[in-house]
Amino acid sequence: MLDCAIIGGGPAGLSAGLYASRGGLKEVVLFERGLPGGQITQSSEIENYPGFYEHGKTGMDFMDTWQEQCFAFGMVHRMEEVKGVRKDGDHFIIDIAGKESVEARTVIVATGSTPRRAGVKGEDELFGKGVSTCATCDGFFYKDKEVAVLGGGDTALEEAHYLSNICSKVYVIHRRDTFRAAPSTVDRVKRTANIELVTDTTIEEIVGDAMGVIGINIKNKSGEVSYLEVPGVFVFVGHNVNNAVLKDESGEAICELNENGQVIVDLNMRTSLDGLFVAGDLRIDAAKQVVCAAGDGATAALQVISYIQEQA
Amino acid sequence: MLDCAIIGGGPAGLSAGLYASRGGLKEVVLFERGLPGGQITQSSEIENYPGFYEHGKTGMDFMDTWQEQCFAFGMVHRMEEVKGVRKDGDHFIIDIAGKESVEARTVIVATGSTPRRAGVKGEDELFGKGVSTCATCDGFFYKDKEVAVLGGGDTALEEAHYLSNICSKVYVIHRRDTFRAAPSTVDRVKRTANIELVTDTTIEEIVGDAMGVIGINIKNKSGEVSYLEVPGVFVFVGHNVNNAVLKDESGEAICELNENGQVIVDLNMRTSLDGLFVAGDLRIDAAKQVVCAAGDGATAALQVISYIQEQA
Repeated sequence: MLDCAIIGGGPAGLSAGLYASRGGLKEVVLFERGLPGGQITQSSEIENYPGFYEHGKTGMDFMDTWQEQCFAFGMVHRMEEVKGVRKDGDHFIIDIAGKESVEARTVIVATGSTPRRAGVKGEDELFGKGVSTCATCDGFFYKDKEVAVLGGGDTALEEAHYLSNICSKVYVIHRRDTFRAAPSTVDRVKRTANIELVTDTTIEEIVGDAMGVIGINIKNKSGEVSYLEVPGVFVFVGHNVNNAVLKDESGEAICELNENGQVIVDLNMRTSLDGLFVAGDLRIDAAKQVVCAAGDGATAALQVISYIQEQA
Repeated sequence: MLDCAIIGGGPAGLSAGLYASRGGLKEVVLFERGLPGGQITQSSEIENYPGFYEHGKTGMDFMDTWQEQCFAFGMVHRMEEVKGVRKDGDHFIIDIAGKESVEARTVIVATGSTPRRAGVKGEDELFGKGVSTCATCDGFFYKDKEVAVLGGGDTALEEAHYLSNICSKVYVIHRRDTFRAAPSTVDRVKRTANIELVTDTTIEEIVGDAMGVIGINIKNKSGEVSYLEVPGVFVFVGHNVNNAVLKDESGEAICELNENGQVIVDLNMRTSLDGLFVAGDLRIDAAKQVVCAAGDGATAALQVISYIQEQA
């Protein structure tokens, strides 16, 4: 029986593993099918993780140290895919693809969310080299430069507005001529001098060289193609919330979710199911930042320790 | 008019400053009477801040980098004492000791809480060298060693229990023979084999040498003095919540507090007063960890940016 099973190896899961193992729990296992690290390993430079400020350090470098720190305190990583989590009496059963199930007293789910890609030519190749899905993370790299945003929903326009505080100009490329975003958000964006809405238009290709993005080819509804020179392209076409492990075979979730599939938690990262905690981008109101996910993970692990002590 | 006034220069305030300034806000000012850094600058080693794992780095080293990172994005530090914060129409007025008041669109208060000291001989001199007020932070440094805990309330016994997972033995030194802690907590502690309750006893002196704590002199109610050899002493005699800036002259708070004086917030670090945010140990349910406070600060700053955009 594990003291704590952690599902997901991004910042939230790793931080939970560090706090759970350093806090003296036995048998703390982090399940992550690939290498731990999460989305951040795709970043070519990190400058907004508080206290970490060394030029030229990549997301991968950063996560190497982080993993090492967790292992030093006894956390174990199992490179396996978790299919599902269910409660059985006072403990949990973790179903693992192609392996025997594992029992655990407590579970922290930190499987995050995955930004969708638009499927545009050049997008995958240039991801992390000018193509981004996070304005808060990467906007500053384009200070006083022009950037393009792809999308027409609330997130796209809010992120465009965020970028307009930093960048000299923000082009919003949207395939329709109306926006799904809230009317007040659309109004605000329209009133912002350095945002240009380019509607009825799609991105044909994101163009780059060895250094990264240099521009985009766009096409309007008349079929006219033009070129915009921008060093940064922000894609906001939605997120997939990775909540599948919390659902049973009938698709029913084992704890309360909101209408977007995000897990409802309190300030202690407790879910509606006793002994089950959630940390990071999978929860409601997540700020989708490494330091926030890490804070969540630490909070969840400290709650797990209290929970186990209370059961004793 | 400042875009954002941040009050308090610990991890929560600095992280808020980083995110607010990097997010493109103009005039982000952090008010902290002394050097920024907070409680953590008193730590001789940090090993539980996720991603930061270099032996021999002190809390002070860590905070130096952190400050530098904030200044790089334009945050300004004013070494002044804030006396109070009040709302006036759609903005805030920050009253500063011996200076003119400052106006701000938004305020993030991150003044934290201060662990009380017991007033025992040797305590101040050996603080950070074997005397600690945080089991989560420092317990691991005493893995498989004996430690003493001073106090008899809920926190003291919960922290003693936490330490019992890590340390070989935990002596709880309490001046009375009954405990203020919840009966269930007392029961749990009594059932824990490696916790010894030493009641009706006070600590006369914490004894140390150049390397740190080596033991304690304790005295029972008959006046007998004995010596316990322990390399670590954890003092849990309460916290002062630093909420004074949120109170007006009559002692009334400008936002909702709980019965302990902690500020009530939601997952977005919003208080009950529009435009006022709180981050870190000052809020309800704070885990009192650097990474958690830093996560709060980032969350609060991102909410400030949204709030200002919505007002525009």
